[in-house]
Amino acid sequence: MAVYTEVSDEELEAFVAQYDIARVVSCKGIAEGIENSNYLLQTETGNYILTLYEKRVEPADLPFFLGLMEHLAAQGVPCPTPLQGRDGKALRQVAGRPAAIVSFLNGVWPRRSRPNQCGQLGDAVAGLHIAGSDFTLTRPNALSVNAWRPLFESCAGRADEVEPGLADEISAELEVLERDWPQDLPAGVIHADLFPDNVFFLADHLSGLIDFYFACNDSFAYELAILLNAWCFEPDGQFNITKARLMLAAYRRRRPFSEAELKALPLLARGAALRFLLTRLYDWLNHVEGAFVKPKDPLEYLQKLRFHQSVRSPAAYGLDWRPWAI
Amino acid sequence: MAVYTEVSDEELEAFVAQYDIARVVSCKGIAEGIENSNYLLQTETGNYILTLYEKRVEPADLPFFLGLMEHLAAQGVPCPTPLQGRDGKALRQVAGRPAAIVSFLNGVWPRRSRPNQCGQLGDAVAGLHIAGSDFTLTRPNALSVNAWRPLFESCAGRADEVEPGLADEISAELEVLERDWPQDLPAGVIHADLFPDNVFFLADHLSGLIDFYFACNDSFAYELAILLNAWCFEPDGQFNITKARLMLAAYRRRRPFSEAELKALPLLARGAALRFLLTRLYDWLNHVEGAFVKPKDPLEYLQKLRFHQSVRSPAAYGLDWRPWAI
Repeated sequence: MAVYTEVSDEELEAFVAQYDIARVVSCKGIAEGIENSNYLLQTETGNYILTLYEKRVEPADLPFFLGLMEHLAAQGVPCPTPLQGRDGKALRQVAGRPAAIVSFLNGVWPRRSRPNQCGQLGDAVAGLHIAGSDFTLTRPNALSVNAWRPLFESCAGRADEVEPGLADEISAELEVLERDWPQDLPAGVIHADLFPDNVFFLADHLSGLIDFYFACNDSFAYELAILLNAWCFEPDGQFNITKARLMLAAYRRRRPFSEAELKALPLLARGAALRFLLTRLYDWLNHVEGAFVKPKDPLEYLQKLRFHQSVRSPAAYGLDWRPWAI
Repeated sequence: MAVYTEVSDEELEAFVAQYDIARVVSCKGIAEGIENSNYLLQTETGNYILTLYEKRVEPADLPFFLGLMEHLAAQGVPCPTPLQGRDGKALRQVAGRPAAIVSFLNGVWPRRSRPNQCGQLGDAVAGLHIAGSDFTLTRPNALSVNAWRPLFESCAGRADEVEPGLADEISAELEVLERDWPQDLPAGVIHADLFPDNVFFLADHLSGLIDFYFACNDSFAYELAILLNAWCFEPDGQFNITKARLMLAAYRRRRPFSEAELKALPLLARGAALRFLLTRLYDWLNHVEGAFVKPKDPLEYLQKLRFHQSVRSPAAYGLDWRPWAI
């Protein structure tokens, strides 16, 4: 929930005048997106999203993010398309920040995901992975296994304030993940942050995937591991195997898994749980008084991590582990 | 900047189904309005604002606020109109909160007001006062002179943390205002919170007055006193007499002042400055860690108060004090 940078009406008019979208009708800061300032911009030609990139986004990464959205949208992935100004550029500045206008996607994100939505998501993510395979820019995953130890070390001294024994538990898990993390899985561009608030549905059909500002190159199966964490647990912490099965089965119909991917899934799911546990822990411990964004509970991901630690085979995710049995 | 209550997609669908506005296309929490949760709701028939009333709004006041907007809009005041559901009601519940849908107004609020905008505002506010004169419900101003002492007493012990000597300065001012506050000025429904973020302009024409949730019965001149504070000071604290003159002259052309109103203006402007100084001081001292809303600087209003204290006649606001000389 965030608007960090205000745009004056004069600045906005001058900015919009650089595009072929006629005149501003309305522009409201929206309470979505944690990293950047987002405005729902309405002009005489339609609705758009104006994003001002704030300090957590590296300006050098913006050509990757904007280029990727353009590439994916051109191939039919339901994601925002950056608008080019009359100078042919999508990225410019407003109010002292890098900024871009992207197309607006209809739809509402599900506060509680339903099984059929998980199935549609699995299909859409397979489509995203396939469409991204010929995108030429690359961006390493800055929040993969190598980043977790430094992140942990920056919080280790205070982790037990959140839960007694947490530091030891994370430390032990990190050792396993660093030792066993798979290196040669099929990889390409992944979204890496496909939580429910980044997925829109309209009349129960998936209508949009948004917020590509964590997108990077990593294994496709790691994306699925994130999805298992983000979509398949109920509010009471129970894993919903029906949702997982529908999601993975739909993905697999469009982009079949290799056996190695299947086998790696439980470990990758542990890694994904640890990644969100660590970033939430960091945000929790470094929360600034008066900040706009309420930090999310890190312990939700400790619970998810423990579930994945208990998993002995991909069957726990509703999948027959035999790759020929779809 | 605020969305306090989340509405699930299922709740939203069920809520919207009670109106003749077809199906939801999009619904985004907007970062405007401090008191309530506001969503920009798009359906197949157009744009609307969905407001969930939060705890600072007294439910018993809602029929006044909604009835007033309906009354004013019907008389051509450019303000939101509450939508009635199929049951004829504008007020119902969603997500455990009283809630209403109102029409959406195009326009952008001015981050820095321009003189011609102040003129248009004066004219529009006179129109609002005239249109409100036959509205039958009433609501006393809960933040007028009688409310200031209890508010001050709740902060007095800590006021000097914000500025040394502040408690004494407020106390002395309160005595003057309580003694001299005028009682018999022409009165009616006023908006009472017409700050720039509640006034929209489209292509430099005033297109909307929003956020009627402080509206009440009070003297018309007190509304002008609030406007002088909210619109006629520059960011460096200087009073802009041109803006004041254009605003008051435009108002006066549509609704002439009485001599008593003119003479009272400097004292009312002191009162309005003190009212915002006190509420900001309260919010500053009672700011909750992690709250979404950044408190505004109370001292901005101390500076404004001191300016009005120095005023010896309405001429300081750009007005010829002789009522026949417009």
